[in-house]
Amino acid sequence: MEKAALYHRPESEYAYLYDKDTMHIRLRTKRDDVLRVQLISGDPYLIHETNWYNSSEEMKVIAQTEEYDYWFIEKTADFKRLQYAFELSDGKEKVFYGDRGIFELNEQTRMKAENYFRLPYFHDIDRVKTPEWVKETVWYQIFPERFANGDPSNDPDGVLSWGSKLPGRDDFFGGDLQGVIDNLDHLVDLGINGIYFCPIFKASSNHKYDTIDYFDIDPNFGTKELFRELVEKAHEKGIKVMLDAVFNHTGYYSKEWLDVVENGEKSQYKDWFHINRYPVKFGENGNFEGATTIAYDTFAFTPRMPKLNTANPDVRKYLLDIATYWIREFDIDAWRLDVANEVDHHFWKSFYAETTALKEDFYILGEIWHSSQSWLNGDEFHAVMNYAYTETIINYFIKKDISSTKLASGLFDQLMLYREQTNQVMFNCLDSHDTTRLLTLCEGDKELAKMTLAFTFLQQGSPCIYYGTEYAMEGENDPDCRRCMIWDEKDQDLDFYEFVKKLIALRHSEQPLLSYGVLDFTVLDNQKNIVGFSRRYDEQTLQAVFNNGTEECSIEKIDEVLLSQKTVVEGDRMIIKPKGFIVYKKCYR
Amino acid sequence: MEKAALYHRPESEYAYLYDKDTMHIRLRTKRDDVLRVQLISGDPYLIHETNWYNSSEEMKVIAQTEEYDYWFIEKTADFKRLQYAFELSDGKEKVFYGDRGIFELNEQTRMKAENYFRLPYFHDIDRVKTPEWVKETVWYQIFPERFANGDPSNDPDGVLSWGSKLPGRDDFFGGDLQGVIDNLDHLVDLGINGIYFCPIFKASSNHKYDTIDYFDIDPNFGTKELFRELVEKAHEKGIKVMLDAVFNHTGYYSKEWLDVVENGEKSQYKDWFHINRYPVKFGENGNFEGATTIAYDTFAFTPRMPKLNTANPDVRKYLLDIATYWIREFDIDAWRLDVANEVDHHFWKSFYAETTALKEDFYILGEIWHSSQSWLNGDEFHAVMNYAYTETIINYFIKKDISSTKLASGLFDQLMLYREQTNQVMFNCLDSHDTTRLLTLCEGDKELAKMTLAFTFLQQGSPCIYYGTEYAMEGENDPDCRRCMIWDEKDQDLDFYEFVKKLIALRHSEQPLLSYGVLDFTVLDNQKNIVGFSRRYDEQTLQAVFNNGTEECSIEKIDEVLLSQKTVVEGDRMIIKPKGFIVYKKCYR
Repeated sequence: MEKAALYHRPESEYAYLYDKDTMHIRLRTKRDDVLRVQLISGDPYLIHETNWYNSSEEMKVIAQTEEYDYWFIEKTADFKRLQYAFELSDGKEKVFYGDRGIFELNEQTRMKAENYFRLPYFHDIDRVKTPEWVKETVWYQIFPERFANGDPSNDPDGVLSWGSKLPGRDDFFGGDLQGVIDNLDHLVDLGINGIYFCPIFKASSNHKYDTIDYFDIDPNFGTKELFRELVEKAHEKGIKVMLDAVFNHTGYYSKEWLDVVENGEKSQYKDWFHINRYPVKFGENGNFEGATTIAYDTFAFTPRMPKLNTANPDVRKYLLDIATYWIREFDIDAWRLDVANEVDHHFWKSFYAETTALKEDFYILGEIWHSSQSWLNGDEFHAVMNYAYTETIINYFIKKDISSTKLASGLFDQLMLYREQTNQVMFNCLDSHDTTRLLTLCEGDKELAKMTLAFTFLQQGSPCIYYGTEYAMEGENDPDCRRCMIWDEKDQDLDFYEFVKKLIALRHSEQPLLSYGVLDFTVLDNQKNIVGFSRRYDEQTLQAVFNNGTEECSIEKIDEVLLSQKTVVEGDRMIIKPKGFIVYKKCYR
Repeated sequence: MEKAALYHRPESEYAYLYDKDTMHIRLRTKRDDVLRVQLISGDPYLIHETNWYNSSEEMKVIAQTEEYDYWFIEKTADFKRLQYAFELSDGKEKVFYGDRGIFELNEQTRMKAENYFRLPYFHDIDRVKTPEWVKETVWYQIFPERFANGDPSNDPDGVLSWGSKLPGRDDFFGGDLQGVIDNLDHLVDLGINGIYFCPIFKASSNHKYDTIDYFDIDPNFGTKELFRELVEKAHEKGIKVMLDAVFNHTGYYSKEWLDVVENGEKSQYKDWFHINRYPVKFGENGNFEGATTIAYDTFAFTPRMPKLNTANPDVRKYLLDIATYWIREFDIDAWRLDVANEVDHHFWKSFYAETTALKEDFYILGEIWHSSQSWLNGDEFHAVMNYAYTETIINYFIKKDISSTKLASGLFDQLMLYREQTNQVMFNCLDSHDTTRLLTLCEGDKELAKMTLAFTFLQQGSPCIYYGTEYAMEGENDPDCRRCMIWDEKDQDLDFYEFVKKLIALRHSEQPLLSYGVLDFTVLDNQKNIVGFSRRYDEQTLQAVFNNGTEECSIEKIDEVLLSQKTVVEGDRMIIKPKGFIVYKKCYR
């Protein structure tokens, strides 16, 4: 047995309270190395009273990656306390793995209380809780300057005619909040029940990530009254609203930063930032685009975005006032947090406490592209933008540079980083304002794009459609991915629209299965590039097979197909052509 | 290479801010499996500007355990941001290990930004900070009822004559705070600079873990005025004061619990506890000693200790008021937290915030006997009672059931669970009011006890002497380990006293080396049971050799011996007899 590969840690994603009475316990072993794992467990104060150390329960493999097997068991405890260890067998040897390490499995080892891991008491207050509604949400991301121009009277100077050209870095096309209100029924028709807005606060650029005033709506987008109307109308239609909080840095033209530019060390705001030397004026002292020795810390090396010192109590109070203001006054449902990983944890803990105190089922989504366990322990974010997860999907279906086995491995690698309740509310987007658009990644291949979308929608986590994807919009990475929304029907791909609408309907109709269902890969064919999987929940099983290869494959004829592409019946078989897939509720044999 | 054994996690004890500019980075590999580890690192926003991914730095092994090698490197970063990955070689293959897993080491892998781990920004506010003074503290634990009776006028009814018998579970001998004040000079003479008091608040039992009133000193111990005098006099003599907070549960005779006993569901305090059914009166409804189906949650199954519901805001406020009251009004320096693992993390985070806000270098010590990473992330405790660490020392020296190699392995296993700054303030006790006394563990063998003490004092962490150990007191586990202190000179072992005094003096004179020095094992002889180690800091090296075997061993003659036992010079050699040891500042060859 490869003992050095064993891994477990109490009070982490390896052992956590799932609901108030139930612990989830996971163990990692080397792939295909261990035949059987059993859990020995009991109350810490009864070990010698009931001799529970003499019995054990079977654990089962719930995930297999290239390197590891992950074993799992659910546990309750009569007295809300648990002491536990693992008994492992590979057919040749048996070992005991607990808090003090790995031992030979014998009576002496089993009966020593200190050898066991501890979950000292089941505290519901420490449990990671995630909002129910997010599990059932299909998001729609809007880049406000490019979604719809509903009110030409608030257009900026020099506004370009809608869609008249591909967007440059500094172009304005006049999109605004009225445009969103005018098109809410479009979202309703599509089946959307959550909007994620890129920033809408007063700022200089078209993307508004360089905030001037967090307490105001950008005048080119509308007014606070209009935003209030938008939230109310969205709520009436069952749509939640998520705003983008850019708290890592502010904009060069914010009042506070301009004060530092002007007054230098004498500015009352100098401790609001991380200043290394004066002066800090743009264009001077190394403070120009592309410089890497600028006089103050910034987002990346962007002198227009000075980094905020969130450890400063005044800054913290200021930003928390903003965070709560838009909930209190406008009833928003969620914050998406820009560059969330570069802001301190202390700040996010206060952020979580204050926002969830106002609205218990508030959703907090961090922009983090890498492993995010430190932020997902129940007191900072509920989820992150799951790029690391969807990247694997893109690598398999679109880039075709990984095998079916590696697809499964990559997805499980990510799922095993987090608690089950976290995975249920992860934000799964295939593209965004920061990436190449899905269809462009697919080099215009719409069937491939549909297949990739379908696979993503059938996984755990709340999926997101980037505005325009429903009409098969294209675009290279930023700024090209921020083209004007296609509103002219003759330019819209209505077939693609119908597909997306059907997919969203499926996502809704197959709840709660698609949020809670256990994932199992039923086919991982690395020669033919076929992947099949099931999701099981509450005696229901959804099955799916995707043909990502270049040859046909077939399965037994299915009567009730939920969704398919490039799939035809031939006698008692169903032929799935390349780029075809099938989703159904019968067993795959 | 055993890839499944690789382990690293950013923002944990594997990667953390040590001082405000320096990250510590550790990597775990299978023991003796990897020949070379290098760190590839740079600023996340410069990866393609400076191509830093083409260079790397050597890491070195800092700890070896039975299963693992631990590699280490210190890193600073020009822009307070770090992206990094590991390049590993075993002589046969080279691999890249980063945030997305393990890959073949090639240009394509290295240049992909998402393959790297991230330490997004060096936030000093998130850094784990530990009080400097604790690193230089030698503690002395006092069980107040048994240390000294300075004021017979406050003795309880039925008090027994001092030391007249071995203590039973319910005996009282009259120890009090005046007794401590009267003997402060004894502690000064010994070299003690921190007292850890078992509970001193009003309670029923002799051990006072069943609190009646947290705002009052037990009348048999003295008054608040007397306690204030004690703290002041201790501080004058350079001695810090740590009190014991029993916040997991209260006592049966507390006002709040008695109200629930009397009024049941109508009690205003019913939500202060975890009640499963009524009535809750002692002796009824299963609520008797030894019952395991009691009507309310308790410490263990002790109906006299009803568990407090620390998730209740009223309880939280009540306990935090107590925690801050004794700091504000009496200037105590530390809290030791009883049954700390069974109280919720939310509570401890508030506890940390409020106590350290009052006194920046306040020390918080949790009673946790198992792995404690969840509590030691900088916002709950500074340290735990390090039983898991000292147990290994006891197993080697006293129980003799592990080898020299396993001693080193066990110590490193524990050290690698925590950050360096945490290890520096761990509370290392070989015995306490909850265990058999050291000398009794040694079956009366004083040389063995001295050797074990000496080894412990030479390790990282602040050591503690349990009252009476300086006079070679004995005692089986609770209640026998709580015997009356020996004050009659004819019964005191003055030779043992002199040894302990010398050892404490060495601990103080060899600072900061003994707090900060890097630990290396220089001799691990499993045949002869010899262990030698060095501690290195700032160009100084302390060396020690302990003979835990049954045969003599020898080393080259040392001129400047700091401390030794059973060691004699023979020509140009020093002979270390069984149970002998030597501590010096020259190289062992």
